[in-house]
Amino acid sequence: MRVAVGQAGGPTSVINQSLSAFISEFSPGDLYLIVNGYEGLADDHMIQMGEEEQKHIQMRKQEPGALLGSGRFSFTHEQIKRALSHLIRRKIDVLVFIGGNGTMSALHSLQQQAEAQGYPLNVIGIPKTVDNDIAGIDHAPGFASAAKYVAQSTHFSELDLKAMRNFEQVRILETMGRNVGWLASAAGYLSTESQGPDYIYVPEHEYSIDLIMKDVARAYRAKGYCLIVISEGVSLNNNQTSLSNSRGRTILGGVSKQIEGAVKEKLQLTARAELLGMNQRCYRPAVSKVDEAEAVLVGHRAAELVKGNESGFMIGLQRRDTIGYKAEVTQVPLHIVYDGGERFLPDYYINERQHYNKWLQGIIDIPEPAVSKHSGRSMIL
Amino acid sequence: MRVAVGQAGGPTSVINQSLSAFISEFSPGDLYLIVNGYEGLADDHMIQMGEEEQKHIQMRKQEPGALLGSGRFSFTHEQIKRALSHLIRRKIDVLVFIGGNGTMSALHSLQQQAEAQGYPLNVIGIPKTVDNDIAGIDHAPGFASAAKYVAQSTHFSELDLKAMRNFEQVRILETMGRNVGWLASAAGYLSTESQGPDYIYVPEHEYSIDLIMKDVARAYRAKGYCLIVISEGVSLNNNQTSLSNSRGRTILGGVSKQIEGAVKEKLQLTARAELLGMNQRCYRPAVSKVDEAEAVLVGHRAAELVKGNESGFMIGLQRRDTIGYKAEVTQVPLHIVYDGGERFLPDYYINERQHYNKWLQGIIDIPEPAVSKHSGRSMIL
Repeated sequence: MRVAVGQAGGPTSVINQSLSAFISEFSPGDLYLIVNGYEGLADDHMIQMGEEEQKHIQMRKQEPGALLGSGRFSFTHEQIKRALSHLIRRKIDVLVFIGGNGTMSALHSLQQQAEAQGYPLNVIGIPKTVDNDIAGIDHAPGFASAAKYVAQSTHFSELDLKAMRNFEQVRILETMGRNVGWLASAAGYLSTESQGPDYIYVPEHEYSIDLIMKDVARAYRAKGYCLIVISEGVSLNNNQTSLSNSRGRTILGGVSKQIEGAVKEKLQLTARAELLGMNQRCYRPAVSKVDEAEAVLVGHRAAELVKGNESGFMIGLQRRDTIGYKAEVTQVPLHIVYDGGERFLPDYYINERQHYNKWLQGIIDIPEPAVSKHSGRSMIL
Repeated sequence: MRVAVGQAGGPTSVINQSLSAFISEFSPGDLYLIVNGYEGLADDHMIQMGEEEQKHIQMRKQEPGALLGSGRFSFTHEQIKRALSHLIRRKIDVLVFIGGNGTMSALHSLQQQAEAQGYPLNVIGIPKTVDNDIAGIDHAPGFASAAKYVAQSTHFSELDLKAMRNFEQVRILETMGRNVGWLASAAGYLSTESQGPDYIYVPEHEYSIDLIMKDVARAYRAKGYCLIVISEGVSLNNNQTSLSNSRGRTILGGVSKQIEGAVKEKLQLTARAELLGMNQRCYRPAVSKVDEAEAVLVGHRAAELVKGNESGFMIGLQRRDTIGYKAEVTQVPLHIVYDGGERFLPDYYINERQHYNKWLQGIIDIPEPAVSKHSGRSMIL
């Protein structure tokens, strides 16, 4: 059996754990490593895995980034056909990709094209995400570590801002989250009665600058400073802001800067916008141990499916209905993922902190904040 | 003996360890806690430390931010006189501040004013910094943890960028460092022959946009992507960029954005500017254990000096001339700090990575990167 494996989309802190777990189940020689994601596939850029490559990946499994090279690539019909011709020529039986929503739909298209051409190609998807926007599952590896980084950064940033409030009044943290607010909402995980971000804005809802100005003014009046969190994908007055364009995909970002400007101009307060940045998906010390373990699990399960001659599935994670957190590894038909579209954060979680915290608790791997148990009051009077 | 203690300037990840160590040497009742730094001092905003406050601080000593409130404040001659009048009325014998360069010169001025008015006021300074710009010492608490965060973030960000190089070509990381390049230069700590930022720009030198464009183009041609690091205080063509103004002090930042614009326009490459942000001074999981231990040490030593009736000193850290790192706690006359001005990063460290790494090695508390030992080559071909 000849298996080709690749990584696609934005990396996560644990994506290489899934890769390492998957390749550890195969003998060198049976696997082909696709370099630079779908672009590499279209360009026939793959190498046969030798012992050296296998060892190399296993040794670096704790690194962020994507060891095979990932990237973004608009996979046109022409390129799909080209990719398939390479797979046929190389006699690849199974194609496995670690990726997000886009990757699963690309796998689906590839399989359909293979079927149309009468070539028996199995495809299996391994999920990764920082946004948690993949349908058909509870969550995917990568998200919990990003959520941990966001929760911690927000908590520490608020302590910093509180100390500097005679100098700086409003801080606006911008998280990743192109279409969904799971990550931005994690910013409130360490909130207590007397601490936490004042407002969190998510792409599931729509806001106006005027509304946000009212929120900020209210929070500032109440305590002399204000920290808000906003997802990069939020539309203000129906407009998404973007930083730049690359290969047909807009790099979002800048909504916090827009709010910073409005705070300065309309409220006459000092404001600082801050993107939490790439560290959300690559700052290894913030890795959640649960997340890492699950990244390994889905990698192993994918290898099982490949060996069992299964096809057309993405590996998934569901919660078991138990006391305490317990995950179950599932397999989801690709069309469920593909047809499911974006997995939005339910209003139930947006509006009720304790519900969302309970959901996060199992996977985020942050001990209960010691501070909240002892004292609700702040030293600074 | 009545002692008043405050915190001033930008917080660090370990500034509350110095505070906690200091106050643990005094009985409740003997200490006055100054709220919000020099502004609180001028406004007579201080509270007598009771058992509750002492416990509160000791319990939260591992938090970032400043438990007493800090802030920035332009301390005019009028305000110095006002502050002194409060200290005299309250019969304060000793004034202690945890702060940076500006704080040490403010303490100096206060002591001189007290002397001129015939009031016996002792002053002692406890250093903190993320920039490492304090004269008369080797380094001060706060810097090493910030350096660790910068070194790690740069390393992880490069792995992330390398994985995404078909989508994003140039990343520009901006660090803190108003006048000195110690922190920006720490970005190269985890560099190996085949990895690490391509260029690091520090405020000690002057650069033109044209020079940086040549650097970026060269690095990009060589390997298909480019990561550079720049200190917020760098002047490009003699101009510092700033984000905003607050209370007479400019918030620096934006130089990376300027470079991003130039890369897009002049080199026609995709670029992303990223400020490493407030996490440099507040992301607790990045704390260096050595840094934290030294923050405790200087706090205790300050208490000893106070009890020994010493005055006019800042506590310092020097290296002992031994094999391996060993620090010595010293006391530096305030005028040495005050007259010494900014402590610049020597060219010796700017130009010779191994020398600067050796200096950092003792304090930064990052294990040798495992990757560099095993393999210089990158998986992505």
